[in-house]
Amino acid sequence: MPRTPHRTTSAPGPLVATGAAGLALRPAAHATITGGLWAARRSVNAATSIPGGYDRLAEAGNLHNLRLAARAARRGAADGPGDGRAEGSAGGPADAAEAPGPADYVNDLPFLDSDVHKWLEAVAWQLGDPDTDDAEAERLTARSAEVIGLLAEAQEEGGYLQSYYQVVRPERRWQELNWGHELYCAGHLIQAAVADARATGRTELLGIARRFADHIDSVFGRGEGRIDGVCGHPEIETALVELYRCTGERRYLDLARYFVDRRGHGLLPPGGFGNRYWQDHAPITEATEVAGHAVRQLYLLAGAADVAAETGDGELLAACERLWEDMAASKSYLTGGLGSRHTDEAFGDAYELPSERAYTETCAAIAAVMLSWRLLLATGRARYADHMERVLLNGFLSGVSLDGEHYSYVNPLQVRDRYVPRSGDRGAFRTRWFHCACCPPNVMRLLASLPHYLAAGDAEGLVLHQYATGSFGLADGPAVEVSTDYPWRGLVRVTVTGTPGEGGAWTLTLRVPEWAAGRWRASVAGEPVDAAAERDGWLRLRRAWRPGEVVELDLGEALAPRLTSPPPRADALRGCLAIERGPLVYCVERAGHPEGTALDDLRLDPGAPLRESEEPGLLGGIVAVHAEGELRPPAPGGGWWPYRPAGAPAAGAGEARTFTAVPYHLWGHREHGPMRVWLPVAGGPGERPAAADGRER
Amino acid sequence: MPRTPHRTTSAPGPLVATGAAGLALRPAAHATITGGLWAARRSVNAATSIPGGYDRLAEAGNLHNLRLAARAARRGAADGPGDGRAEGSAGGPADAAEAPGPADYVNDLPFLDSDVHKWLEAVAWQLGDPDTDDAEAERLTARSAEVIGLLAEAQEEGGYLQSYYQVVRPERRWQELNWGHELYCAGHLIQAAVADARATGRTELLGIARRFADHIDSVFGRGEGRIDGVCGHPEIETALVELYRCTGERRYLDLARYFVDRRGHGLLPPGGFGNRYWQDHAPITEATEVAGHAVRQLYLLAGAADVAAETGDGELLAACERLWEDMAASKSYLTGGLGSRHTDEAFGDAYELPSERAYTETCAAIAAVMLSWRLLLATGRARYADHMERVLLNGFLSGVSLDGEHYSYVNPLQVRDRYVPRSGDRGAFRTRWFHCACCPPNVMRLLASLPHYLAAGDAEGLVLHQYATGSFGLADGPAVEVSTDYPWRGLVRVTVTGTPGEGGAWTLTLRVPEWAAGRWRASVAGEPVDAAAERDGWLRLRRAWRPGEVVELDLGEALAPRLTSPPPRADALRGCLAIERGPLVYCVERAGHPEGTALDDLRLDPGAPLRESEEPGLLGGIVAVHAEGELRPPAPGGGWWPYRPAGAPAAGAGEARTFTAVPYHLWGHREHGPMRVWLPVAGGPGERPAAADGRER
Repeated sequence: MPRTPHRTTSAPGPLVATGAAGLALRPAAHATITGGLWAARRSVNAATSIPGGYDRLAEAGNLHNLRLAARAARRGAADGPGDGRAEGSAGGPADAAEAPGPADYVNDLPFLDSDVHKWLEAVAWQLGDPDTDDAEAERLTARSAEVIGLLAEAQEEGGYLQSYYQVVRPERRWQELNWGHELYCAGHLIQAAVADARATGRTELLGIARRFADHIDSVFGRGEGRIDGVCGHPEIETALVELYRCTGERRYLDLARYFVDRRGHGLLPPGGFGNRYWQDHAPITEATEVAGHAVRQLYLLAGAADVAAETGDGELLAACERLWEDMAASKSYLTGGLGSRHTDEAFGDAYELPSERAYTETCAAIAAVMLSWRLLLATGRARYADHMERVLLNGFLSGVSLDGEHYSYVNPLQVRDRYVPRSGDRGAFRTRWFHCACCPPNVMRLLASLPHYLAAGDAEGLVLHQYATGSFGLADGPAVEVSTDYPWRGLVRVTVTGTPGEGGAWTLTLRVPEWAAGRWRASVAGEPVDAAAERDGWLRLRRAWRPGEVVELDLGEALAPRLTSPPPRADALRGCLAIERGPLVYCVERAGHPEGTALDDLRLDPGAPLRESEEPGLLGGIVAVHAEGELRPPAPGGGWWPYRPAGAPAAGAGEARTFTAVPYHLWGHREHGPMRVWLPVAGGPGERPAAADGRER
Repeated sequence: MPRTPHRTTSAPGPLVATGAAGLALRPAAHATITGGLWAARRSVNAATSIPGGYDRLAEAGNLHNLRLAARAARRGAADGPGDGRAEGSAGGPADAAEAPGPADYVNDLPFLDSDVHKWLEAVAWQLGDPDTDDAEAERLTARSAEVIGLLAEAQEEGGYLQSYYQVVRPERRWQELNWGHELYCAGHLIQAAVADARATGRTELLGIARRFADHIDSVFGRGEGRIDGVCGHPEIETALVELYRCTGERRYLDLARYFVDRRGHGLLPPGGFGNRYWQDHAPITEATEVAGHAVRQLYLLAGAADVAAETGDGELLAACERLWEDMAASKSYLTGGLGSRHTDEAFGDAYELPSERAYTETCAAIAAVMLSWRLLLATGRARYADHMERVLLNGFLSGVSLDGEHYSYVNPLQVRDRYVPRSGDRGAFRTRWFHCACCPPNVMRLLASLPHYLAAGDAEGLVLHQYATGSFGLADGPAVEVSTDYPWRGLVRVTVTGTPGEGGAWTLTLRVPEWAAGRWRASVAGEPVDAAAERDGWLRLRRAWRPGEVVELDLGEALAPRLTSPPPRADALRGCLAIERGPLVYCVERAGHPEGTALDDLRLDPGAPLRESEEPGLLGGIVAVHAEGELRPPAPGGGWWPYRPAGAPAAGAGEARTFTAVPYHLWGHREHGPMRVWLPVAGGPGERPAAADGRER
């Protein structure tokens, strides 16, 4: 299938809301990233990660499993039309030879198809980027057409499409909503289809998705003979709203609303982790905190925010905002990472934020970006853009390596000197692919669609809420080009490239990041902007803009490295400070320090100034930060019991050292070694005193 | 079966080593506890926990499953003798009606039999206690005889006995050593049988255990046609050494040695948690740290210490000591609790000791007592007795409630104000029984055998290494009665009640707990003991003792409440202190404080003196400790982002408060509410500063 003719503007991205939607902001119609940090990462994503994703899906059996489903679907069709359930299993013994069965299926997870769908979504967004290399675009077009063809073959006549239940457990279809992930996979299929339709103009995948959605719409709901239930893993909610936006079919929105409303009423069995795990303990409007599996919670809220926007449901939107605030205020790591528990990939209690066992799944970071973006668009509040930026540049970006071939599933904030990687806990270090490979294609689709997440239009004009070199424009005229070395440097230069035809006044709105509040300088066409132009985190510049006019926003003063305190209730972080610089969280790695440096004994001198240095040759080119402190070795003699009487004399002074910090998102590139974000402060309580007596300890 | 005639001395306990064993100490021949904290707990154990254990095993299906196994065994016998494998599955369709199958089996865990065996062991030790009430003893004798009869029926002719593999998976017998727990269950059966033989003189259970052990000895090993393998869960090693001691059959010791030696050579598949999980990554003599599942690691080392003692293997003993020291020095909670991770019930990295998610399984505490005791006996080093005491009175005793009917599986050191109990993580609070009920009968057997763990004999005489009111004596004469209110009060009064017939000098050795080093007073027959009598944690009093002579050891000065610092590498504890009093770790609960007290905002004033008060009406009678501090409320206004610039002005002073601490082992009795062992120190770094600017946060 040939690619859509070469574009000069970007195709639409995610979240093209209807005119009726209640949104303060709408994504820019045109958005590209052409330089800087994100351009470099997106280039690797397009040239390495996405093409490699096809190979990984082939190696890991995902495509094989779809081929099995296609065989099963052909058998089902040959057996004649059924009711859309369990067709693949209906064959008698005579068909046994050709019937694929559980033993043929690769991997024991029921949601493998979703990795394929997310990869297709990534391909679509990439094809919608006008800067995608033509040869790459051609290859991706062909690869994705092949996979879409496979999905078409695997889809049953009734519309059903999930290889696991078609091949492994056909008799249990729609009967294991807790762990089956059927609606979850359908959701990702729909998202891929919407992306493919918007970005490439192709229609085949959209047709597949609609047939599946129609099937679901015929099976689920409150009516006679329908299944009144929700999926153990939210995802279809946001997808159905997008399908509504893409097709104009109201019943998809109604179905999304149904799934949002019915969660929290105990329709799912409690299961091993309890009903909070899948947010089935309380309806969204009644929940008092984010709870359970982090990705499930955040996908659900993203869908709820979409439903709220398209239905004008203020109560639902308020609930989403309230739960977001609980998340940000008491359950977010400094990196924006979310979900502290390994056992159930869940939010912990409020302020349960251990650095070393931070689970902070990459998918949870992606889900947080999706949610914060939706709430930003719905409300126009800068805090959501602040949080998006924090997650994107820290807890999300740590999930993929510079080479685009290695991913993190978990993103801890500390690796100890004696850390031992363990299989089974998804490790602390980057890996090529995973048995449960939800994160890598999720990274690919977010990077591929990233330009759309940076700029928006409001009632007054154009809003730049994230900064990257590129071009951004609204459908009705206002457009700009941005040039910046952000986040390394604080200068953002915005050149107006378009205005509405009538040439009237409009507002260019720029976000002032929360760490730069009151500490920016700006000029319009060389004239300084007054400090009063900042309000609620936004710098609003209203004017009859002419093409060529330049705005400069300088965040340089505020961008300087700083030390940050943890919340006092966060026990695991007490007595420590972290280094941040602009929107970037920094970490100290053993790599780059003298051999034998015990990171666990690092003590920071909070009074000594932080210095920075440009390091073009380090980790793809960074600004490093240097801090003073000491290495505080264990008390001489060691001993068998490490707890000591309080107030006993402290061990001798440590050895003065300068430590170098690098951006957190780049940790683990030089070696699989120790790392810390939170640095203990010298002289704090808890320093090891000398033994109080001479006895063997 | 009638009970053994009423005893005046105790029956032998665990670990009756052979004469050839290389041990510095041997358990006292006679040991009873007649008063004080342990007597009260043991009385509840005998009157409530053990009798209730039978009911719980009946309710939970453990006995039902053994009856199924008995049916399967009858069928196997009717089919004629086999090779001891898979007999129960040999029946053809004609037998189908009476064949118990997987659907009949209750619970999905393969190790349910071990709960029965541990309960039988508890019964046996209790029956060996001369102070057991006669009516209770009669009931327990009858109950246990019934269960032993059931085991006899369930045992196959070839000796095999594990209900899960007899009923659910007969075709997989001995083929799933990683998760099957067959040797583990055999080990607990053997331990129960040894206890029953020693304590009651009955022989039926010992016969059952020997037949199973002989079967195992015929199946496992290096010879032709044998299985060269180890169990995924160590336990049989220590059991086989005890069986050797009880029967004199050397091949049981050889088999134990084989299982100890073969672990660490990768015989088990890595599984989901990696081969460290079951200590199969390195032989004990080469391992550099305790690793993996805590109970597995500690049971293994207990067995290795037994093998080392009976074979005189100094290298193996040295390895056990080295690994113990790694455990104590870097992986023990203040309570002596072990194993910080929920996911795999495992040791974390060194100093990974979060309070709130401390897993610290009760069984791990029991295993630590077993190991420390063995190393104490092997080496005579006081540190092992110190650690035993810490675990017994804190991390172990928290595992069972005062009423003897509720148990803790996990024993966290913190419960937050907003803690939400979650199913699936085994909760933070006491429970009547568990789906995986390893802990309750383990508690019962340790409490029932506890007197044997307190005193020992060495080459010079009698050693009291733990203090409780009771009587303790050696086979060759030296005997004492102890009277004390320890751990509540520091005075330990020891009256000599027996000496060797010839009346020569012998040494009465008393342990000086590590917190009392150099701070005790003592007298012998009213004459003060010189400070120089203390060496390496022991107070050695050599004399031609005469019955009636009294030794008083007064630890009262050192027993006063004290504050304790965490190790500086323990990030989760930084900036906090804990309250200890003598051997007891204390905690602060919200219970007992004014309504609305937010424990997460507690700040301790480390300069204010601690006070204590006797509270006869509280929690069964305790000494409470009172500390001064403040409640430091969150900064006014709250906000959405909890991390703040360092050095910003601190929030206003908190509200002065007195906090009351109670012994950790009694937490959770008044309410299922917040609790803390580690108390943040006022004024430490990390206190919440006021917002640095006026902007919405």
